[in-house]
Amino acid sequence: MIELSDLPLRADLVGQEPYGAPQLDVPVVLNVNENPYPPSPALRHEMAAAIVAAAGGFNRYPDREALGLRSDLAAYLGHGLTADNVWAANGSNEIMSHLLTAFGGPGRSVLTFTPTYSMYPEYARNTCTTYVTARRRDDYTLDAGLILDAIALHRPTVVLITTPNNPTGTAVSLDVIDEVCAGTDAIVVADEAYQEFSARPSAVELLDRHDRLVVSRTMSKAFALAGGRVGYLAAAPAIVDACRIVRLPYHLSAQTQAIARVALAHSDELLAQVRSLAAEARAFEAWARSRGYAVVDSEANFTLFGRFADRHRVWQDLLDRGILIRETGPAGFLRASAGTPEEMALLSAALDEIAPTIEGDVK
Amino acid sequence: MIELSDLPLRADLVGQEPYGAPQLDVPVVLNVNENPYPPSPALRHEMAAAIVAAAGGFNRYPDREALGLRSDLAAYLGHGLTADNVWAANGSNEIMSHLLTAFGGPGRSVLTFTPTYSMYPEYARNTCTTYVTARRRDDYTLDAGLILDAIALHRPTVVLITTPNNPTGTAVSLDVIDEVCAGTDAIVVADEAYQEFSARPSAVELLDRHDRLVVSRTMSKAFALAGGRVGYLAAAPAIVDACRIVRLPYHLSAQTQAIARVALAHSDELLAQVRSLAAEARAFEAWARSRGYAVVDSEANFTLFGRFADRHRVWQDLLDRGILIRETGPAGFLRASAGTPEEMALLSAALDEIAPTIEGDVK
Repeated sequence: MIELSDLPLRADLVGQEPYGAPQLDVPVVLNVNENPYPPSPALRHEMAAAIVAAAGGFNRYPDREALGLRSDLAAYLGHGLTADNVWAANGSNEIMSHLLTAFGGPGRSVLTFTPTYSMYPEYARNTCTTYVTARRRDDYTLDAGLILDAIALHRPTVVLITTPNNPTGTAVSLDVIDEVCAGTDAIVVADEAYQEFSARPSAVELLDRHDRLVVSRTMSKAFALAGGRVGYLAAAPAIVDACRIVRLPYHLSAQTQAIARVALAHSDELLAQVRSLAAEARAFEAWARSRGYAVVDSEANFTLFGRFADRHRVWQDLLDRGILIRETGPAGFLRASAGTPEEMALLSAALDEIAPTIEGDVK
Repeated sequence: MIELSDLPLRADLVGQEPYGAPQLDVPVVLNVNENPYPPSPALRHEMAAAIVAAAGGFNRYPDREALGLRSDLAAYLGHGLTADNVWAANGSNEIMSHLLTAFGGPGRSVLTFTPTYSMYPEYARNTCTTYVTARRRDDYTLDAGLILDAIALHRPTVVLITTPNNPTGTAVSLDVIDEVCAGTDAIVVADEAYQEFSARPSAVELLDRHDRLVVSRTMSKAFALAGGRVGYLAAAPAIVDACRIVRLPYHLSAQTQAIARVALAHSDELLAQVRSLAAEARAFEAWARSRGYAVVDSEANFTLFGRFADRHRVWQDLLDRGILIRETGPAGFLRASAGTPEEMALLSAALDEIAPTIEGDVK
């Protein structure tokens, strides 16, 4: 039987593995920053009713422009945005792929600030865009000088500013984004996947001042719709037009458009848990600090904490107790999503039981 | 307001337009080879029930490997295939993109045989793969010598053999695919989007003999699920592994996996119309020949016919009568999908009324 190594795989893919955290069936799943609260039975039935309606046209291609969904997303974002300002896709990773296909490509680069989201290099790789990075400050924050210096050095066509950042949870102030946008001709993408969990204003506020600014969002986290795979962006209409050129036609299925619109019509219900999840994360951080862990200041629904002498051992010890968190980020750290109060109590109790060795950088 | 021309669009995208046929709301839609028969009310409700169940986990990411769906697709294809042989994605255009991302890329080429599917150059463009073509014979058929000569000339890493071909409907015999696979180390993709409408055996039969052969399929046409956006391929597990490396994680939403599995569980109902739609297309072709039109021998659910002295005029005259067909393919030809008997009667009556000037190549 033929092996992968026998096939004419693109040279830069040789030896690579499919991306993704382990999908394990354990009682407490806190590894991929999901929202622990499923849609209510009433909402699930409303989604089903929308499917009955949509399925009457399943034999036809879906609305290629997804204009209804884009209008609803624009209304959700507010600030006078319309469907022309919004693009939607199968998760924010498809949003990022559209942006890098349009504005990256061979001979061009995308700049990110590490440590950051581990999928970014894969978007770059798939779109044949050079991936360049600059290190965040020691506390994982960013300032405009650091960002603009890195832009001057690397001359990227696309800059990704992740706020709050994954896996650190660190947010970037609008002043910084404002100053960066004023100082570059690059496309600046504020990746706000976790924005709803932060008390800061969104970079959407800056769109009318900076026409190369893109704000990327997802319905996976705050809207508790990771399974629905809906990402979107807000930007100048010309940037949306660029995405429209490179998207695969009919990229958003009829069922995805229908379900996302039901979720948006019930944003009050779905967003109700956002504040309590942020509070859970902050409470866990306070607890972790009280136990002597180093904790990164987070404004998202997850916590990066350590430093463990042997983080893999701790990860495994937690998994042995039915608790799955994520082995990611800087050496010695682990990341835990905010779950229900019960789940967080189980996590802290398990950590106390394990009593791992921690070292260095203790705040 | 910023214009697209002000933005750092990738050089080879400048001046391009978003792909897609007009989406117009007219009584008779025969332009994109859709199946005219929607799912039955019973099936729609079963899909809705599957959504109620799936939505209970919408807050979680979907099965990244879509193993249940891939198993069902393997069972549908038969020939002893398993989930390891099958890959699924959001439409066959995402399948093709995965293949070209894995096996194409800068410095590599994909070979197709023109006239053929107008999306292929876009897959190549998006994946930075050089697009090379060879002309089909005058009757739009292919033989192994023609294909192998083109492979020798262009040295592609991927060869797309579309059977039945779009927009001509021309099929390729298994003998030809067999001989081509035996004569090249390239990845040979048999794009069988319209396979169920043909009486010929599928290239799936050849998979155990050729481990660089890929058979691409879609649920859009025969399964009447264009809105659901499900494409898939069958191949050696190593080729599936290559797709797994380049796919965006969680590319298939929970709702898409659920709906596709319901459709597959009811393949008898959904495929029931396949033979009658093929018969509608063949009957329309007989009628068109009887009126003196040139008609390409088709084994799909559509017909390419002409040659019109002014095809755009005929397209518009039909549209003015509420009938939308497609202006595509060789000069002077138009393509019409097989609709219901009533729709086909309206199309032929409208053509008689218009009585367009036809010229040349009349069979």
